[in-house]
Amino acid sequence: MNDTAQKTQVNEVITTEELLQHWQGHRNLTRRVIEAFPEDAFFNHRIGGMRTFAEMTLELLAIAGPGIQEIATGQNNEFKEDIEHGNSKAVLLQHWDETTEVLNKYWAEIPASRSHDPIKAFGQYEGTVISSILYFIDNEIHHRGQGYVYLRSLGVEPPAFWDRP
Amino acid sequence: MNDTAQKTQVNEVITTEELLQHWQGHRNLTRRVIEAFPEDAFFNHRIGGMRTFAEMTLELLAIAGPGIQEIATGQNNEFKEDIEHGNSKAVLLQHWDETTEVLNKYWAEIPASRSHDPIKAFGQYEGTVISSILYFIDNEIHHRGQGYVYLRSLGVEPPAFWDRP
Repeated sequence: MNDTAQKTQVNEVITTEELLQHWQGHRNLTRRVIEAFPEDAFFNHRIGGMRTFAEMTLELLAIAGPGIQEIATGQNNEFKEDIEHGNSKAVLLQHWDETTEVLNKYWAEIPASRSHDPIKAFGQYEGTVISSILYFIDNEIHHRGQGYVYLRSLGVEPPAFWDRP
Repeated sequence: MNDTAQKTQVNEVITTEELLQHWQGHRNLTRRVIEAFPEDAFFNHRIGGMRTFAEMTLELLAIAGPGIQEIATGQNNEFKEDIEHGNSKAVLLQHWDETTEVLNKYWAEIPASRSHDPIKAFGQYEGTVISSILYFIDNEIHHRGQGYVYLRSLGVEPPAFWDRP
C-alpha cells in the first residue's frame, strides 16, 4: 500500500471490512440470543400481539443474505421469509451460519466507492448502498432488543449486549 | 473542494456528517417512542424485571451528550444517570432536545481522521472513536426496540421503525 492509499484509509470514518466485522459481531450475538430461547418459546412466545422471535429471525434471514447478494450483483432478489423449519431452531441456526458465509462472499464484491449509489432494495425500498446496509444492521439490533424482552419475560438471562466476538 | 478531496469523499463508506444525521434520525424516532408512552407507564411499566423505559432513557441521555463531548474534548466525563425528572416526560424530552444540540456542536469538532484513535469512554470502556460511537447508537436502537415491546404490551402502537426524519 502506498502512502496516499494508507492515508485515505486511516482518514475514513469506517472501512468496508470494519463494517462487515461490526455486523458479523452483531450477528454472532443474535445467534446466541436464538440459542438462549427454549425451543417451544422461540416458536410460540409473543408479547402484545407481536411476532414470535422465530418469525423475526425469518425476517432477518430474508434480509441479510439476499439483500447483500442483490447489492453485490445488481440483480433483484425477492423478499421471502418462507424457510421450512419444522419448528426446529437447529434448521434456522444452520441458515444463520450459511448467511454468515454469504455475507462474507458478496461483501467482498461491494467496493466502498459504491456506498452512495442509489439502489432499490428488494426492488422496492429506495436508498443508497450504505443506507440500505445500515437499515439491515439496525433492523437486526431493533428486533434482537425485542428478543431480549421475550427472554427476560421467560425468566431467561440474555447474553450481554456488549459481548460480540 | 478540489477534485482530490471530492473523490475521497465519494469513495468513503460514510462521512462523519452522514453518521451524525443517521444517529439524529434514530434519536428523533426514540423521542417519538418516549412521547408515545402514557406518562405513568413510562415511569412504571416493566417486563421480566427489566428497567422502565424512563430508566433506559436516562441511560441514553447519560451516554450521548457526555460521550460525544468527551470524545471531542479529550476530557473524561462521569457516567451519570441522575437527572431530577419528577416523573415528568416533559423534563426528559427537554434534556433530549438539549442533547440534540450538544451532539451537533461537539460532533463538528471530531474529524474523520480521529475515528481509529484509541479511547476509554467514560474513563473505562476501551475502544476507538468509531467503535464507541457505534456502540452509543446501537445501544439506543437496542433499548428502543425494548420500548416497542413495552408499548405493544400496553396496547399502544409504536411509531414506524423506518420513519426517521
